[in-house]
Amino acid sequence: MEQNGLLMVISGPSGTGKGTLVKHLLKRNNNIQLSVSATTRNPRPGEVDEVNYFFMTKNDFEKKLEHGEFLEHAEVYGNYYGTPKAFVEKQLKKGNNVLLEIDILGAMQIREKFKEAVFLFIIPPSLEELQRRIESRGTETPEQMSKRMNSSLEEIKELKKYDYVILNDEVEKATALIEAIINAELASVERSQHYWLNLFGVRR
Amino acid sequence: MEQNGLLMVISGPSGTGKGTLVKHLLKRNNNIQLSVSATTRNPRPGEVDEVNYFFMTKNDFEKKLEHGEFLEHAEVYGNYYGTPKAFVEKQLKKGNNVLLEIDILGAMQIREKFKEAVFLFIIPPSLEELQRRIESRGTETPEQMSKRMNSSLEEIKELKKYDYVILNDEVEKATALIEAIINAELASVERSQHYWLNLFGVRR
Repeated sequence: MEQNGLLMVISGPSGTGKGTLVKHLLKRNNNIQLSVSATTRNPRPGEVDEVNYFFMTKNDFEKKLEHGEFLEHAEVYGNYYGTPKAFVEKQLKKGNNVLLEIDILGAMQIREKFKEAVFLFIIPPSLEELQRRIESRGTETPEQMSKRMNSSLEEIKELKKYDYVILNDEVEKATALIEAIINAELASVERSQHYWLNLFGVRR
Repeated sequence: MEQNGLLMVISGPSGTGKGTLVKHLLKRNNNIQLSVSATTRNPRPGEVDEVNYFFMTKNDFEKKLEHGEFLEHAEVYGNYYGTPKAFVEKQLKKGNNVLLEIDILGAMQIREKFKEAVFLFIIPPSLEELQRRIESRGTETPEQMSKRMNSSLEEIKELKKYDYVILNDEVEKATALIEAIINAELASVERSQHYWLNLFGVRR
């Protein structure tokens, strides 16, 4: 009897360096697997089915949706995106931890359907640093940047709906904290008691 | 505004190597402080007041007990032992984590009075290893050893009342797991949200 892996859901406002953090985490841990989404949009050059996305028709997606086969889904510009439950569950059973980077609305859908998941909220080290990171992109007008800043602050209020807050100051430190959370969660009595009580033959 | 430290309560049956683990943990982390107990028994040669114990009279102990100044207490062979609340709280406010090694009955008293504490249960790697460790003491009759083995197994059932299970296979690994739990707990939304919401000025 092996212990199941963890489903980890990661959110956080733009300007927090989530992308870099996720890449670093995957590179350092070969027992962490990125979740693969389903989508009805067309593959772009170089995208591989079942690696980048599960590509499917609108009709197939809707049928699966009806059968409750997605942990969350959303429609963006007329295309569906969703997290296939079967893929996640298969990885967890193998003992892999699954990482899913998603916005707050998606995360809250998962909270309802998969209560064993662990919800991580990534935050920048300070207001000033958030501003600096948003400005350093250099692709937006001052108005757009100010709008992005406000929406980031609005999002930070939502951290209360998560389980853990990860300060992404240095990527090494933030990565180590997420690894610590994985180890702690797997050692929690809730997740491990059946395993241990079995091992010592004192289950009842 | 600094974050408070954690009160960590450690229990586990005999033969699990708790003592060695605690020593290792203290050696590696200078922000972990061992809890100092109060007692009404006489100091032994070399024992220092306020370091090994807070030594006090039975009368003083009972007065403090009446005023709710202990997180837990017990009477052993006519002497009182207890964990002074004030000492623990002072350390936590300084940002130190406090470690308290105690039996299950004491731990459950603390669970009632100090719900923010984290409860760790230490287990041996296997039945065979538990037996080997109990036998290797070499100070007991086969009957005493068999009794100790049974009572250890009875205790293992109680792990359900704790928050985390620490397998003490290798002391380095078990120490790292406890350190991971400290970091994860301090990053939990429950413990850190006020700090972060304040920092970003979005508290409400």
